[in-house]
Amino acid sequence: MQPVSRERIREFGDEGIVDREDGVAVEEPLRIVVRSPSMPTPVPFATTMRTPGADDDLAAGLLFTEGALESGADLLSLSAGAARELEKKENTVVATLAPAAFERAHGRRRETVIGSACGLCGSESIDEAIARAPRRVSDGFRVLREVLFAMPERLRARQSIFAATGGLHGAALFDAAGTILEIREDIGRHNAADKVIGAAFRRGGFPFSTSALLVSGRAGFEIVQKANAAGIPVVASVSAPSSLAVALADAAGMTLVGFLRERRFNVYAHPSRIAPPANAPASPHVLSVRK
Amino acid sequence: MQPVSRERIREFGDEGIVDREDGVAVEEPLRIVVRSPSMPTPVPFATTMRTPGADDDLAAGLLFTEGALESGADLLSLSAGAARELEKKENTVVATLAPAAFERAHGRRRETVIGSACGLCGSESIDEAIARAPRRVSDGFRVLREVLFAMPERLRARQSIFAATGGLHGAALFDAAGTILEIREDIGRHNAADKVIGAAFRRGGFPFSTSALLVSGRAGFEIVQKANAAGIPVVASVSAPSSLAVALADAAGMTLVGFLRERRFNVYAHPSRIAPPANAPASPHVLSVRK
Repeated sequence: MQPVSRERIREFGDEGIVDREDGVAVEEPLRIVVRSPSMPTPVPFATTMRTPGADDDLAAGLLFTEGALESGADLLSLSAGAARELEKKENTVVATLAPAAFERAHGRRRETVIGSACGLCGSESIDEAIARAPRRVSDGFRVLREVLFAMPERLRARQSIFAATGGLHGAALFDAAGTILEIREDIGRHNAADKVIGAAFRRGGFPFSTSALLVSGRAGFEIVQKANAAGIPVVASVSAPSSLAVALADAAGMTLVGFLRERRFNVYAHPSRIAPPANAPASPHVLSVRK
Repeated sequence: MQPVSRERIREFGDEGIVDREDGVAVEEPLRIVVRSPSMPTPVPFATTMRTPGADDDLAAGLLFTEGALESGADLLSLSAGAARELEKKENTVVATLAPAAFERAHGRRRETVIGSACGLCGSESIDEAIARAPRRVSDGFRVLREVLFAMPERLRARQSIFAATGGLHGAALFDAAGTILEIREDIGRHNAADKVIGAAFRRGGFPFSTSALLVSGRAGFEIVQKANAAGIPVVASVSAPSSLAVALADAAGMTLVGFLRERRFNVYAHPSRIAPPANAPASPHVLSVRK
């Protein structure tokens, strides 16, 4: 299963018409099933439309951001395509969980397909999603303006599938120095976030509380929700946030950065984690005071 | 309920820091409930995360693209916020349907929330969605290359909420001359498509079979699926398509245009509806022949 498919296309431009091949981002369903040593028969957890690749990270990330996994000990094993009893084994991940985690996963399973651009859908209700989310995140993380300025270019430079298709979202976790700690891609922003968070979770002992999440698209509610579930204090996107994303970040004490591009960005919630440059004046040029 | 909320933000740039207000696109749930003269008590059809505005169009469009409405006679009335018995009346649309349409809507209701960026989720299965989709569309529609070139600028010029927030998707239906017939905006691409299709459906006798749908973001599977349900033969997007979108357009006989920007575009399926300019050579400069 490849992340890019080759398609014959016809290109129209001012110079004329050219028939050629081009790369298109693959969108395929992935079934995530869970079992535990005491419940060896896998039961469905979720089906998500994703770009193939890092399927184990995606499964771990979704189980973590949905609250089924609380520590590394909850995830006993992951095996993409290893379940012989399942029909399309190349599109299935079997997660073997500790009994308590299995119970939590079972309680939060999604009965329906999660679209490639949607992280919220399949949750039982919006109220439930909001109620589960506001976990206060660490206050002990600061990031410099200049470090944020540099992030989008670093993400883009590492997006190999985007380079081949022009159409894939990227998500990366950065430390305070602006170093990329993990990076993943997917056709869905929420999958890219789950993949990068899942990859970090699988490392064990990942410093979520001193990291920043950058996503290549908009910052919708579900992106902030996933960062919140992982305890990530800073979420940045190159595009616009939604009103619900702002409300959640505000309630959860998270810093939300939008329109991060061309040495400029807006902070929509909790700007105090953004450190001014060393040579900046002591007080900002304030036009109106934030409440 | 306004489509734009004013948020206090802190803007960081090379010149320094400015605290000011900025517009953010609102994302709120809309409940769509259905009833019929013989079943007067409304039952839930779907809840979708959307930007407030054109809620009646969104409800009609989703009911139409999901196959519940087959003709204008199926939709007896729409009343946003008119159901006194419902809790949050400003976020509810009651659709009164003819009995057969009510039965179809009941059979296709979505039990879960549809996220603002997802049109597929909540459908029972991907296979079902694909199986329902491939309705062959009209072959009698042609559009000139120059007309396609002009579409994105026309869409953008009419996107009033995008102008206020920098973060909203737009969808428009064009005729063969490149005139905008309907245009709607939403934080979700699929909602923008449902709104514009719903607005056209509510007109009655809309010429779907001789129109082209342009969306401002990527062309995912669900966008092609919705156009297919309405019988729209040409779908164009300013960004990349997904592999499933290409597969569906190919199977359904639909023309799929991607990366429509700066006087250039790619055609991923059925390019024969794109007419060359009058002064073009009779045969294109072909590097490789499309199968």
